[in-house]
Amino acid sequence: MIYFDNAATSWPKPVEVWKAMEHCIRNTGANPGRAGHRMALEAGRLVDEARELLASLFNISNPDQIVFTLNATEALNLAIKGLLKPGDHVITSSVEHNSVTRPLYVLQNNGVEVTKVSCAKDATIKTRDIEKAIKANTVAIVITHASNVTGTLMPIGEIGRLAKKKGLRFIVDAAQTAGVFELDVSFMGIHLLAFPGHKGLYGPTGVGGLYLAGNVELTPLKEGGTGSSSKTPWQPEILPERYESGTVNSVGIAGLAAGLKFIRREGMERIRKHEMELTRRFLEGAERIKGLTIYGPAEIYERAPVISFSLEGKNSALVGGVLDKQYNIACRAGLHCAPDAHRTLGTLEQKLVRFSFSYFNNEEEIDHSLHALAEIAAIPPGKFNKDDEDDGSCSC
Amino acid sequence: MIYFDNAATSWPKPVEVWKAMEHCIRNTGANPGRAGHRMALEAGRLVDEARELLASLFNISNPDQIVFTLNATEALNLAIKGLLKPGDHVITSSVEHNSVTRPLYVLQNNGVEVTKVSCAKDATIKTRDIEKAIKANTVAIVITHASNVTGTLMPIGEIGRLAKKKGLRFIVDAAQTAGVFELDVSFMGIHLLAFPGHKGLYGPTGVGGLYLAGNVELTPLKEGGTGSSSKTPWQPEILPERYESGTVNSVGIAGLAAGLKFIRREGMERIRKHEMELTRRFLEGAERIKGLTIYGPAEIYERAPVISFSLEGKNSALVGGVLDKQYNIACRAGLHCAPDAHRTLGTLEQKLVRFSFSYFNNEEEIDHSLHALAEIAAIPPGKFNKDDEDDGSCSC
Repeated sequence: MIYFDNAATSWPKPVEVWKAMEHCIRNTGANPGRAGHRMALEAGRLVDEARELLASLFNISNPDQIVFTLNATEALNLAIKGLLKPGDHVITSSVEHNSVTRPLYVLQNNGVEVTKVSCAKDATIKTRDIEKAIKANTVAIVITHASNVTGTLMPIGEIGRLAKKKGLRFIVDAAQTAGVFELDVSFMGIHLLAFPGHKGLYGPTGVGGLYLAGNVELTPLKEGGTGSSSKTPWQPEILPERYESGTVNSVGIAGLAAGLKFIRREGMERIRKHEMELTRRFLEGAERIKGLTIYGPAEIYERAPVISFSLEGKNSALVGGVLDKQYNIACRAGLHCAPDAHRTLGTLEQKLVRFSFSYFNNEEEIDHSLHALAEIAAIPPGKFNKDDEDDGSCSC
Repeated sequence: MIYFDNAATSWPKPVEVWKAMEHCIRNTGANPGRAGHRMALEAGRLVDEARELLASLFNISNPDQIVFTLNATEALNLAIKGLLKPGDHVITSSVEHNSVTRPLYVLQNNGVEVTKVSCAKDATIKTRDIEKAIKANTVAIVITHASNVTGTLMPIGEIGRLAKKKGLRFIVDAAQTAGVFELDVSFMGIHLLAFPGHKGLYGPTGVGGLYLAGNVELTPLKEGGTGSSSKTPWQPEILPERYESGTVNSVGIAGLAAGLKFIRREGMERIRKHEMELTRRFLEGAERIKGLTIYGPAEIYERAPVISFSLEGKNSALVGGVLDKQYNIACRAGLHCAPDAHRTLGTLEQKLVRFSFSYFNNEEEIDHSLHALAEIAAIPPGKFNKDDEDDGSCSC
């Protein structure tokens, strides 16, 4: 099988990821605590190690400012709902994932003002449009680092400088970029960085995280046992416990640490170069397929290795089904949980087929997929079998 | 090593648990969705299977009324904070874990009235005391099925009948009992059942869940991508998606399904019988150790296999350290994230040593631990080495 659904979750994982998980569950399976018996302490060290690896990757000085969550969605919920209060104004883009737009929608109904800055048809945004949207009560900008539909890279360095100049909090959704593109929270002025563990970081599902700058105080999403300051009826102030109630996913975090070590060993630049070469090869080949329209920026340097396209006169969900069943290519067709992005692109009804690459894909796979798409493009629309159609929904 | 910290997380896990996780990550590693390519569908089936196994275990007619969470703490937060509104009154016990008391404390500061019904010194509660606490604005009762400190079993069937009679919502924390004791949500009148996947259900860390009765509507803790109804800016109404935003821990859930099949194969009654036999053996042996005080009910049938005790004149944290380092017995000494329980027992300063058993423990281990405790009890208090002391905190 050719797996081009890495924007949903990366697959395969490096062998050492599940080896580390197996080792954890067999040998370090205790509940990680700050005190107690040796196996619990050892489990705690595994969790600390993952935090240190993440801190190193994102240039975070204090690893305890990283809190583990179930996924990037939880991290975004904690950041957005934990920060914003009624009366606050927040600026976002018109191409965000539902993990940003839905929490904002809830807040909007509770007195938070939301401005969605319109992106261009290629999902690019202008920092000056964000600047124009700033008002007296603006407290934060929340934006994705790269669109999960078109792969469009946002100018987060520039937006970070704007946020700093204006004294705003800067929240970044790194779901499509963590582990592939440089993310330096200090240099980029990021106050809150949400990331999944199971995409570009090559960990398993079940782990994500949120970095919080030192001066950021959030209302926790959850309270509970934290393994410290157990006597108080209130949640402790100390990090990471303040935002990590209950048992953490130590087994998943052990896998994530192995994924992070894999990235360190291979080199993020090499990983990115490989993925971008595949992206370039696909884009060049796709140009030659009649009726295939690529969405997103024309320039490769404005892109992450996530590509959405349509085939003229063909239902995207149906194309996805044919790719899967007849060509053994796993991709994601639909709305990609980002209806705003599809509204911006004008593809809310048409929907799109998405290919997303990882370090484990290769040129032969790209060529095979181009061949497949050329064949599908050549089929007269009436010849598509309705039975192949899925419902076009997604789970990302 | 003798592992007696199963109340924090069970260890070891059945071999098939990590085998199932490895199989999932290697062969079914896609993001489980309701539509899309075959590997994603297969991943979805794995998640569905776990839901069906849980539904069968807890006598839940519709598996979609079970939502997966990071842990039982998240499930309790969702149940408690999702249900209660300012002006509501809720009744709980005086021996709850911080996963119940801390969310309630937050709500208390936001206009929810909380009554903590006093338990006796053995952590037992009287249903008539709960009944007496009911007021005109009471909407719910939230209680643990078994104390995580003393193992005291609460009369949840009786309390469920009371809740039904009075038209109250009944929230049960099954952190110490799921997989070991009968839990029939229908028979017991439970509206919201929170459970961890990684304790008595033998799954890995990173998975918990919440059952919601059909007529219960909660405010979600998190919103985001749900893989269905992607177009709407609001969270879909449909279950389980309404409360499962972002990528679920499919790898962990695959492990949990294997744990549930292990329980089904071995038989929950046999598992419980084995654990209670170990409990009885320990309690009988402990009675003969001078200076050892057991907390909790005298009758074995009022107990789960969780036992807390103190040794006269000896710091509990220090005893835990000696058990670990000198006798290779892993247990948990401290407050067990349940300060209310320790207040009820009168052990907030003294703290306690906790032993908690699983199906994988055996009689030899019990006997070895009794031998160890007898030796420690015989040491003059002054001879304890302060270096062995941990800080008495816990992570549960």
